[in-house]
Amino acid sequence: MSHRRLLLATVMSTALLCANAASGALAQTPLLGFTPADAEAQRGLEARFDAGLSADAQRGWMKDMASKANQVGSPHDKQNADWMLAQFTAWGWDAKIETFYILYPTPIAEKLELLGDHPYLAKLHEPPIPGDATSAQTENVLPPYLAYQGDGDVTAPAVYANYGMPDDYKALERAGVDVKGKIVITRYGGGWRGLKPQLAQEHGAVGCLIYSDPGDDGYGPADPYPKGGTRPPDGVQRGSVQKMTIYPGDPLTPGIGATKDAKRLTRETAPTILKIPALPISYADVQPLLAAMSGPVAPKAFRGQLPITYHLGPSTAPVHLLVKSDWGLKPIYDVIAVMKGSEFPDQWVVRGNHHDGWVFGAWDPLAGNVALLNEAQSIGALAKSGWKPKRTLVYASWDAEEPGLIGSTEWAEEHAAELQKKAVVYVNSDTNGKGFLNVEGSHDLQRFANQVAVDVPDPETKSSVGARLRAHIQVQALSDTHLEKNAKAAASGADLLIGALGSGSDYSTFLQHLGVASIDLGYSGEDEQGGIYHSAYDTFEHYSRFGDPTFDYGVALSKTAGRMVLREADADILPLQFGGFADTVGGYLEELKKLNAEMKTKSEAQDKLLAESAFGLVSNPAEPTLPPPADGPVPMLDFAPLDTALVKLKASAAAYDGTLAKAGAVAPERAARINALLRDIDQTLLDPEGLPGRPWFKNLAYAPGVLTGYGAKTLPGVREAIEGRRWAEAQAYVGRTAAVLNAYAARVDAACALLKGLG
Amino acid sequence: MSHRRLLLATVMSTALLCANAASGALAQTPLLGFTPADAEAQRGLEARFDAGLSADAQRGWMKDMASKANQVGSPHDKQNADWMLAQFTAWGWDAKIETFYILYPTPIAEKLELLGDHPYLAKLHEPPIPGDATSAQTENVLPPYLAYQGDGDVTAPAVYANYGMPDDYKALERAGVDVKGKIVITRYGGGWRGLKPQLAQEHGAVGCLIYSDPGDDGYGPADPYPKGGTRPPDGVQRGSVQKMTIYPGDPLTPGIGATKDAKRLTRETAPTILKIPALPISYADVQPLLAAMSGPVAPKAFRGQLPITYHLGPSTAPVHLLVKSDWGLKPIYDVIAVMKGSEFPDQWVVRGNHHDGWVFGAWDPLAGNVALLNEAQSIGALAKSGWKPKRTLVYASWDAEEPGLIGSTEWAEEHAAELQKKAVVYVNSDTNGKGFLNVEGSHDLQRFANQVAVDVPDPETKSSVGARLRAHIQVQALSDTHLEKNAKAAASGADLLIGALGSGSDYSTFLQHLGVASIDLGYSGEDEQGGIYHSAYDTFEHYSRFGDPTFDYGVALSKTAGRMVLREADADILPLQFGGFADTVGGYLEELKKLNAEMKTKSEAQDKLLAESAFGLVSNPAEPTLPPPADGPVPMLDFAPLDTALVKLKASAAAYDGTLAKAGAVAPERAARINALLRDIDQTLLDPEGLPGRPWFKNLAYAPGVLTGYGAKTLPGVREAIEGRRWAEAQAYVGRTAAVLNAYAARVDAACALLKGLG
Repeated sequence: MSHRRLLLATVMSTALLCANAASGALAQTPLLGFTPADAEAQRGLEARFDAGLSADAQRGWMKDMASKANQVGSPHDKQNADWMLAQFTAWGWDAKIETFYILYPTPIAEKLELLGDHPYLAKLHEPPIPGDATSAQTENVLPPYLAYQGDGDVTAPAVYANYGMPDDYKALERAGVDVKGKIVITRYGGGWRGLKPQLAQEHGAVGCLIYSDPGDDGYGPADPYPKGGTRPPDGVQRGSVQKMTIYPGDPLTPGIGATKDAKRLTRETAPTILKIPALPISYADVQPLLAAMSGPVAPKAFRGQLPITYHLGPSTAPVHLLVKSDWGLKPIYDVIAVMKGSEFPDQWVVRGNHHDGWVFGAWDPLAGNVALLNEAQSIGALAKSGWKPKRTLVYASWDAEEPGLIGSTEWAEEHAAELQKKAVVYVNSDTNGKGFLNVEGSHDLQRFANQVAVDVPDPETKSSVGARLRAHIQVQALSDTHLEKNAKAAASGADLLIGALGSGSDYSTFLQHLGVASIDLGYSGEDEQGGIYHSAYDTFEHYSRFGDPTFDYGVALSKTAGRMVLREADADILPLQFGGFADTVGGYLEELKKLNAEMKTKSEAQDKLLAESAFGLVSNPAEPTLPPPADGPVPMLDFAPLDTALVKLKASAAAYDGTLAKAGAVAPERAARINALLRDIDQTLLDPEGLPGRPWFKNLAYAPGVLTGYGAKTLPGVREAIEGRRWAEAQAYVGRTAAVLNAYAARVDAACALLKGLG
Repeated sequence: MSHRRLLLATVMSTALLCANAASGALAQTPLLGFTPADAEAQRGLEARFDAGLSADAQRGWMKDMASKANQVGSPHDKQNADWMLAQFTAWGWDAKIETFYILYPTPIAEKLELLGDHPYLAKLHEPPIPGDATSAQTENVLPPYLAYQGDGDVTAPAVYANYGMPDDYKALERAGVDVKGKIVITRYGGGWRGLKPQLAQEHGAVGCLIYSDPGDDGYGPADPYPKGGTRPPDGVQRGSVQKMTIYPGDPLTPGIGATKDAKRLTRETAPTILKIPALPISYADVQPLLAAMSGPVAPKAFRGQLPITYHLGPSTAPVHLLVKSDWGLKPIYDVIAVMKGSEFPDQWVVRGNHHDGWVFGAWDPLAGNVALLNEAQSIGALAKSGWKPKRTLVYASWDAEEPGLIGSTEWAEEHAAELQKKAVVYVNSDTNGKGFLNVEGSHDLQRFANQVAVDVPDPETKSSVGARLRAHIQVQALSDTHLEKNAKAAASGADLLIGALGSGSDYSTFLQHLGVASIDLGYSGEDEQGGIYHSAYDTFEHYSRFGDPTFDYGVALSKTAGRMVLREADADILPLQFGGFADTVGGYLEELKKLNAEMKTKSEAQDKLLAESAFGLVSNPAEPTLPPPADGPVPMLDFAPLDTALVKLKASAAAYDGTLAKAGAVAPERAARINALLRDIDQTLLDPEGLPGRPWFKNLAYAPGVLTGYGAKTLPGVREAIEGRRWAEAQAYVGRTAAVLNAYAARVDAACALLKGLG
């Protein structure tokens, strides 16, 4: 599906570049985990690595791989896997294809029509775009669909539910608009796609549509394709709507690899498959439906940029929706290439990007995938010239990410025990564009990411991508006070803050199920993808005009991810730093306290007004609104266990980081013992029982939100319980979360003692 | 022109009602300035006053007055004045018409066309609306125009400048879009209309258009007229664009009444008339022009709800704009009705609303004007029954408010000396609708306004308008944290906070030029005026469907304003309270300090980034943006004089308010001496030199902003100097403003001493 990063969500770089931001000089800062001499050698290696990269190669590979429809189950998807296998092998990697068999529904029949006096039959089709030959192809191109919707043939009035998020349903309820038995029209944005039909279903709807509003990614932000790069009137965003917040991967094989003979659930018993039919539609197709709505005028936050008055509904005429799918198992092809480590073969540096698209997939995922291939090619050349990585490199090109992170999840579930024993890091990318570096990840890798960023030259300026990002964050904060915290860090010269990982790409299983420290990265901000995301217009032609025309940012991605891989592979001491993690957790804890306090204040204010019948008093008799339900009392949680854990964590982190900074060369035997402690330190953040209602998610520091989908929830056991007003659960998870933080700190202490020469 | 109040800009009511908000009981609180016995008598009088009001009468009067075009200079405007004169006289008032002669340009020729390969000729015409007979009239209906634009015949490329406010020009400059020699297209909103062509002219534009975006007041907020009440595609907002922030009123006679023989400036020398041609246009007419724009995509804040990509320009083809006006003098007719006070004939309670519209003027101004007439009728009946006001009542129906507050300003300038000697208060209204009470005004009247609000029954609920507003403020604050301060006051049971007066209706001259304590009020929030404001669709038919169909809120306005008038007329001690004013000034001072500090922080951050060339570093080479100009150093002002004045003011206010609360009946002779001090206390806030660059505005507490137009600037001498980075001026006005606050406090002290029986 690709994680569509917000430009400003995450940020990184290091301090020393700040002063010479304009000079463009690249920094020669120390490298975490390397002695100065080793660092110099490593930078020499990286220079040779860079020399092996090629924008032209990336362009050529994308052109080929995106030349035909390559979604799961398509012939070209398999051809791409086979071709990559041959490439990896030619480059000297030990490569193979691992095949899994997954439930993957594809559309057989689709129909959407407005009945009544002014009928309208939806096109549900993306016509060719002049000048884009790829978009004119029809072979193996499926019509727009939502994977893992429920199929059905329903006729009912429609209502309009904005982004289809929980607050939107509250607004509908207060406006007196009933969703039960209706077809709910939602628009993309405001939260993860899959929540829209899921919440519609939970509210009693019989069907769901998701359309792309032109104000969000059509003619609003820029001219539509082909004049500009945004979504044309008939463009549709496909996507998965399986309930990935319970577990991602094959719906029939939670927790285990979807091998040929795996024990499977049925479609009916799989909890991540929806029960109602749903379709994604274009803004050309939705306009007649929205124009046929009666009922109250939609609140301002519900309105897009169609030239109509948005009403909540119901529609004046019924809507007929039909979706029928082929629910067979399909094979998927993960390409796995291994280069064995010369010193620590049982420590794995895993690097991945997926290769399946929704149609042609130029932006998503091939822009990232060709950068990964280019890294593997250059590393292969280094290996042929005699260099070997100390640790084992595992390069993976996943299949079936789009329907639900399936290729990576099935592989990781299949190899779970081995990964938990061997993996030291997972480095992910997905779509790529041009502009500014985005990084999200485990915060013990924040310093590491900052150090990499200042060593990668920016293609457009003579500066580093880290220095450019540092400037960008500060310039943005001048007009957006929300960015103040990041900008303060940037201006101070401290590490730029990286964002937490939620979901939306292949890191999810590594980080949240297995506890492997993970990083996700890419470039964006000066490109124009938004509008054609997951449509038939995500083509090589489009990418070459509106993505990264020179492919220089493809090369920058290779340089950035490649450095991460090479440094993780060769570091004497694994390149973790704990102060950044401790500070970040401290920030999360402050947020939780504030959330608790603000909910108390607001709920008390609201319940007082309810008791005074104030809502009835202010309701307009001509357009009545109903009072909200009472919130009930909000207790103040006892945060002491987390406060105590945080104090400990900060002290442990400061001791380790300080000791490491003063440590010279560490004897190999001692370094090995330290690395044994650091390798799986993020697994201390796992709770075997996992999160409430979704035990697959075991990480108590990071999770995708149950009600955000892609968006991260940090300290999720506590945070989501507070948000959901489940106070006993919140209090219980204060304790559980404190326990994993204590375990983490104890591990830091143990590593620190070894680093000091003790033990 | 009418002041279009924001529902939430201002708020009021009193404490005691909070507890029984739902019970609907009206409070029997003490009345400021009355002994308990007198208060009871006063409420009896008010009950009789209420009984004399009639929704049917208001409806009938509006229907007649809005039956034909009634803009300045039209026959029906004069007929309305004559008819009102007869009514006042029949009701027992001593009434007359005062005539002034003002420069009032009306359009002779208008043309707007897009040239080039895809030409478009703008309609510049509002066709009839089915079902609205009034809108089909053509007699004396002028085409849409902007009064006091500069006339001209220009052909030039167009650029799009969003709301045409200072920040919009900064954005254009940074995007590299040159305004010089262009026709600037702006949209309504974001600041006062008149600033748009004025700033365009100052930036070197040769012409200016102002259109109404459908997202702002067309199909965005509700269905267009006639299905709903918002602006249809061809609707146009007329309005004045004279530079009222320098001085309002007749452009040729600043500071003096525009009598027949007054000494006049010429059109060329009048500083408030623009030099470039300008027209207001519809969203139907602007769409072809905006669609013809090239250049960078407009930033998000510039985009409306037209189904196009908004670009900054220039246009791909030139635009031709022609405006030619008749610049003759026209007579205007203020209707002035006096009822002499029985005890204090030389103390005047002035009440006003204008009667001229832009076309038919049902909402604006007649909804308010018929409420005023109804008050006068009922007071006349009271007088006939034997009651007489203690103080003199002056009821005024102003002409020529729309082109620039001209009727009120000329009258007030002509009678300036007498008003400064006699006026105790000015109570204004303008357009009216239904929903919630809005009050803005002098803060020494905040308690008074609160007391009135809890005694007026709300037509839709069984509560008071004050209690309903108190609930409304709190409910709104649940979803809008900006309203927290008001909501806190509301929840605590304290006086609801009233907003400060900027400009946009006839109080301006009284408050800001003469220093007469003023109040402006009306009802809104459940009506649908926005879209047809100042258009040919502001008709009786429209008002009867979308305004106040029962005219019950017209009666509520009469009850509210009438109570204000009657209480001011009969109070033993003039009903001022000073704690609210002191607290409000304290809040303003905090804002100024914060503004100063935030500007310093932001300017330093920006100038540091400029020095580091950070803006160049983040600029996208494909769409370069230029760095902002350097702000330069921001000194921290010495606020000590204001701090000291505030301490004094708070102490004086507390002493007076406390003394008044404990005071019983005050002997008439002593009350007269106290009232002599209180009557003109707001005049102590005047500085004879006035505000920098606009000496007509003499009030150092309240002014319309030079760069907001309608929006109030409080402590304006200091605030606008800070905003404009004129640091020496800001420091000087700290001193001047402290001086007027000290004079105010000294007057409070003197009144307090008398109240205590001293002196």
